[in-house]
Order: sequence, then C-alpha cells, then structure tokens
Amino acid sequence: MKNIDATIVTIGDELLIGQVIDTNSSWMAQRLNEIGIAVKKRIAIGDSFDEITAMLNDECGNVDVVLITGGLGPTSDDVTKEVMCRYFNGKMIVDTLALQNVKDLFEKIYRRPVSESNLAQAEVPDVCTVIQNGRGSAPGMIFHKDDTIFICMPGVPYEMQGIMNEVIPYLQQQYNLPVIIHRTILTAGAGETILAEMIKDFEYSLPRDIKLAYLPSYGMVRLRLSTSGFDKQITEEKINSRFLILKGLVKKYTVTDIDISMEQVLGELLIKKNKTIATAESCTGGAIASLITSVPGSSAYFEGSVISYSNSIKEKLLGVKKNTLDKFGAVSEETAIEMLKGLLKNLQTDYGIAVTGIMGPGGGSTEKPVGTVWIAVGNATKIETKKLHQRFDRRKNIEVTSAMALNMMRLFVLEN
Amino acid sequence: MKNIDATIVTIGDELLIGQVIDTNSSWMAQRLNEIGIAVKKRIAIGDSFDEITAMLNDECGNVDVVLITGGLGPTSDDVTKEVMCRYFNGKMIVDTLALQNVKDLFEKIYRRPVSESNLAQAEVPDVCTVIQNGRGSAPGMIFHKDDTIFICMPGVPYEMQGIMNEVIPYLQQQYNLPVIIHRTILTAGAGETILAEMIKDFEYSLPRDIKLAYLPSYGMVRLRLSTSGFDKQITEEKINSRFLILKGLVKKYTVTDIDISMEQVLGELLIKKNKTIATAESCTGGAIASLITSVPGSSAYFEGSVISYSNSIKEKLLGVKKNTLDKFGAVSEETAIEMLKGLLKNLQTDYGIAVTGIMGPGGGSTEKPVGTVWIAVGNATKIETKKLHQRFDRRKNIEVTSAMALNMMRLFVLEN
Repeated sequence: MKNIDATIVTIGDELLIGQVIDTNSSWMAQRLNEIGIAVKKRIAIGDSFDEITAMLNDECGNVDVVLITGGLGPTSDDVTKEVMCRYFNGKMIVDTLALQNVKDLFEKIYRRPVSESNLAQAEVPDVCTVIQNGRGSAPGMIFHKDDTIFICMPGVPYEMQGIMNEVIPYLQQQYNLPVIIHRTILTAGAGETILAEMIKDFEYSLPRDIKLAYLPSYGMVRLRLSTSGFDKQITEEKINSRFLILKGLVKKYTVTDIDISMEQVLGELLIKKNKTIATAESCTGGAIASLITSVPGSSAYFEGSVISYSNSIKEKLLGVKKNTLDKFGAVSEETAIEMLKGLLKNLQTDYGIAVTGIMGPGGGSTEKPVGTVWIAVGNATKIETKKLHQRFDRRKNIEVTSAMALNMMRLFVLEN
Repeated sequence: MKNIDATIVTIGDELLIGQVIDTNSSWMAQRLNEIGIAVKKRIAIGDSFDEITAMLNDECGNVDVVLITGGLGPTSDDVTKEVMCRYFNGKMIVDTLALQNVKDLFEKIYRRPVSESNLAQAEVPDVCTVIQNGRGSAPGMIFHKDDTIFICMPGVPYEMQGIMNEVIPYLQQQYNLPVIIHRTILTAGAGETILAEMIKDFEYSLPRDIKLAYLPSYGMVRLRLSTSGFDKQITEEKINSRFLILKGLVKKYTVTDIDISMEQVLGELLIKKNKTIATAESCTGGAIASLITSVPGSSAYFEGSVISYSNSIKEKLLGVKKNTLDKFGAVSEETAIEMLKGLLKNLQTDYGIAVTGIMGPGGGSTEKPVGTVWIAVGNATKIETKKLHQRFDRRKNIEVTSAMALNMMRLFVLEN
C-alpha cells in the first residue's frame, strides 16, 4: 500500500503582500492528516495565469491530491476557474444546481437582486465534478489528470470548510488510506530547551517511524508524537507505549495529554468541580475573558469580568482603595490582590483571576518597566500572586500573560 | 531597472499538519512589499533534508531573494542549518559573537546553565554572513549563489522580526528597488459583490499597472489599489488620482482611507473628541474590549468593561432589572438597552457599547436561534439598537459581531 501525499495551494495576491493571514492552509492540513493524507508542501501564489499554470504543471503527476483555495470570487481579479478550464481543456457551462443556489442565496439570504457577475459563479468547466457550496455562491470543482486529483474551493474559510465536509469522504473513497496517529502533550512552565534536555534519551531511542515535534506557543510547548500505519490497532499500540513514557518524563509541566487548549482544560476542571470563575483584567483588556468564552458551553462556569482599565473603574467596580493605588500604584501586588478580593465579593464566584500590568509600548518607568505584570488568582480563603517580566511587543505580552494567568488558575483550582 | 522578486519559505513539520498557523509569512511579505520587493510565492515544507534541498534547487537562480524561517532550533528535528551548510559546500564553525550571545542569554536572561545543544546554536556554515540574534540564541545567516540571496532566520516570530530589522536595510543596499505604493480604503456595511457593482466602471478603466484588490474580513472589506515605479513622485501621483475617484465612489461605506483598523479609527475619533468609552459584553465575552485595548495608548479613552456572561452579573453590575430578563429574556432589545444604561451610569463614560446574543453551537431556540444578537450603542441622551442574525460558527459569530458593534459605535460617535 502506498502513502497518499497532498499539496495545499492558496491563491490570492493578498497572501503575497501580507495583508491577510492564511488560516485555511492549517485547517485543511489538519483535516487531511486526520484521514491519513500527509501534506508535503503548502504554496501561496498570486491571482496570476502564469503562476497558477506553473503550479499545475509542477504538481500534476507529482503528488496525489492538490487542494486549491481562492480566486473563485465574482470580481475580475479572480482567475482560478478560467485557468483550470484552460489547463484541463474544458469549456464553461452553467451548472443548474449551482445556478439555483446563487439565485436562492440572493433571494432568501442576502435579499437583494442578483448581478450578472454573481450568476457567472454558477458556470463551471465541463470537465470537472461539481461540489455544491451550501454557504456561498462559488461551487467547488474536482479535476483529474495523470493520477493527480485537483480540488478547487473558495477562499472564504467558512465556505471552504463546508465544501471540505464533502471532499474528505470523497478522498477516503478514492484511496486506501493509512491511519495517521498523533499524541500530544500540552506543557506549560518550561521552555523548549528545558524539555529537550529532559527527554533527550527518550528522543534518541525513538524508532525512525515515530516523529517527535516541539510546538511552542505563548508560554506553552506542545510535544507531539506522530506515526502512521495501515493496521490501526498495531499503530496505536506502537505509539501509545512511547507516549506513556513521554508522559512520565514531563509530568511536572503537563497541562493535558489530549490535544485541547489551556482554556478547555480549565473549563473541564471547573465543570468537574461544579465551580464558577470570573476575571478582573486591567492590562489584558478582556483577552483572558475572550479565551475562556471561546469555549462552547463556557456559560456553565464563567460568570463575567470587570475590565478595569482605568483606576476609577478599579475603585468603583472592584473596590480597590484609592490609598492602595496612590501608595503602591496600579501595577502592584497590593492592587492585584484588592482587585481579586473585590471581584470575588462583587461577582460571587468560587474562583477569580486578577491581572494588572504595563503592556507597552508606552507607560513604562525605570521602577516599573514595560512588561511588568502582577497576577493574582484565588478563592475566598486563599490568594496566590506572581510577578512577570514580559519582554515582547504589546500583542505578545498580552497573549503570554493571558496564557500564564490561565495556567496559574488551573494549578490553583487543581489544589484548592 | 529590473524588478526584484522574492520567495518566502517556512520550514517546519508543524506547518504541514496544521497545528500552527503561519503568521511569519504575511509579516515578512509586508516588510518586503514596503521596500519594493514583490513576493511571488510562499512555500511551507517539512523539516526534511530532501524537501529543503529540492526547494533550494527550485529557487536558486530563479528568484532574487529567498527568505527562509524555521528549523534552526536546538532540537534534533531542526535540520535547516545542516542542509544549508551542505548545499553551499561549507563547514560548520563557531561564530564568536553568536557564542557570546548564547552564553549571555542563559546567564542574564534565562538564568540557568547553558546546554551543549544550545551552544551548538552558535555554530554556522563558514560560507555565510552572520546576522546576530538579539532576541534568542539562533543567529540569522545570509548565503549567495547564482544571483540569488538566501537568508535563514529562526521561526520564532519575535526573533525573526528582530533579525528582519537588519535584513531590510541589507536588501535595500543590494538592489536598486522600485517604490511599491498601496492605497487602502476600509469599508463596512457592504459585501464584496455590492462594492464590485458600485465600482465596476472604475475597475474596467484602471490601467494595467494599477491593481485593485478586494480584501474581505469580518463584516468589512478593504479595497486596495497597488502600483509600483522607480520615480516616487510620478508613481504616487498616478495612484493618488485613481484613489481619489475610488474614495468618491464608496464614500457611503468608508470607515477610513488609510490602512488602519476599525478599532484604531474609533480610538482616533475618541481622542479627537476627548471622549471616553466602555463596553458591556455578554456573548462577545470581552472580544470588543480586547480589540479596543489592542491599540497602544487606548487607556486615553477606554475606561473598562463589564463582561456580564450570566444574568446575575447583568443585574448586579449593570442594574438590568430581573423583570426585564424574565419578561424579554437576556437576548432582547430591552436587555441590551438596560445593559447600556447601567454601563454608562456605573462607569461614567461618554459612550458605551452593549451586546447580548447567542453565539452557538448550543443555546438557541426556535424563537431565538443561534446567531441572534442585539447591539445597543449610545450616550447619556441617545441610544441606537440593532438586531443581527449571524450564521457562522461560534468564533466567526463573535468576530463579526464585534466588528459590527465597533462600526455602529463609530458612526454614532461621528454624529453625536
């Protein structure tokens, strides 16, 4: 049995001048990996006849599957469909179902007259198989040549994802796919190098067909073991035995051994304990609340937050004493503790997180430079605090601080 | 004079299985565009000798500049440096400055013993020019072959960005670069197709060397004109005259005609008017506050927020009446208005935004399906409300709602 490889291609000038961050590629890569198709390459090119044709020439016959997104819009800068039509020697015809879909969309959802350029979105090359788009006007298209399957989808993430729901079972039908298995540990509190030293011997002893990756993100590192095989049970047993060893080695820093986020771990813990939580945020400006509420069902344990950006809100809504602010400043352990106490009192939750700091670029002083942050976590009877020195830009300072605050809260909830 | 083209290459298995979203490429693309280097292609490949070598063969002699990030870490899955050393027929030597940098980092910043694998990060091929890394341990490297310049940088965004501060002037010295000019209008309230219809004639009349792009994002569309030339003044005049026409055509939907975000526009407006703002957020869970505070200096106008996820917080901190919640429900115009009134009263700001809704996937009903949202914006004397029907997933529902709420507030502040 042969491994099936894929190339992911995103088309759009906006990707080359950097005005848009490509989230489609990683989403599609995840879906392909789940069904045992390995992504070998991702390419981003402009809305250009020559570039798209060159890409088709490069990939045709060299890879099994090419997923293409972008360049299917109604505007004249979108040329993907035309290039595909020429490359596969087709001619444009109207797809009846796609036409009905466009008309329905405008009549029932957008509620405005449909334009000629929109109607043209129902035209497809007569040499492709059409996948209807339930979330927009441009249909998906499947082409075959020299043992390579080319699949075109719109670049709008929500529409692409809808079409991928049909692409995945289609690909599973076309090939006898291996099982690809990943096992991930989310760690917090140790950098990549510390972890690497801890598991050096384990890493050298890994067989060639099990890969270990270090995936660092804001204050956290994911360790991931990956392998593939055609027998599911054997493949799982092979990786599971190694995963158990890895888990033991990094136990001290482990947040979770399944592939979920820090905020999901905290949420599950709170649900299990049947407890509630709230946040009092100054410098993070709601970023911690945003993370907590990004989890579906978070209303079961998240009551709310006070974003106390100004001192007067710290006093009014959290009961921080004016004297404390004057004497120690807004960015101090004392203020963080009073914010937390006021939060727990006013919002009546079991647990709370309070954060105050200076995220930059302005606002620093010699005594309290940019990046100085105080975090307090606790409940009605116990409070723990920590001072951080962040040394990044504003955005990353906020993100790392939010991750560290959630981890402090998680550790506190585990033990209290 | 010749145009200078670049390819951006990101290396890392994590990019191919989709566990990480690549933000480096768009950041680097922006920097290159600013100095007149056009990005022709972006490629992501795995930590693989063969794939990296194939990429070097493809690009060498075919493009002027290749920016490469990733695969320079201290762990054994990182192979980029070794591949580069072989490809350019070098041998590894210790770079004295890089070695001192690694030692300093561990002694002064990380405050722990430096490991052998970290010391190895100071080794570089003897055929490259070294760029010191002021933000981490892996130095940047510049190689030359067949009129192509290859520049390797670490994949950690913050470290890459630091090294790019030296790469940019280096590239400007190497080439006689054209001026690339973009002019961007941020619009809100009209979809891509509506805008395309409005400016159809304008678009057809554009000369070939001025490109128009539609860049849609959450509830907004950016329209961007781009051109390049070797004479700055002539190039600017050429694009400016067209930009003026475009501005006139889409005036009705224009948020700003410079390339800044909705939250920056609102912030500048508030600073100009010397007014303050606060938010009361239920379903957006702090996302609006996060956007507002992502702008440096937002403490000048942003006082704070109440994230009232639960009904009890809506009552306690915003004074929403129990009767209102019982009679109309948490997701209702009445509740949104009371949230806003309570916010303005308790936080004493000039303006306020209140949002309540159901973001999904759970929590919907026949009467109030998932995606139902009420927004209220106003000041002490006037309140405007709007009902939205979002039809995306949880994350996108939150993001679109936040953008629309900020735009409502912006329009209100403009007129009140």
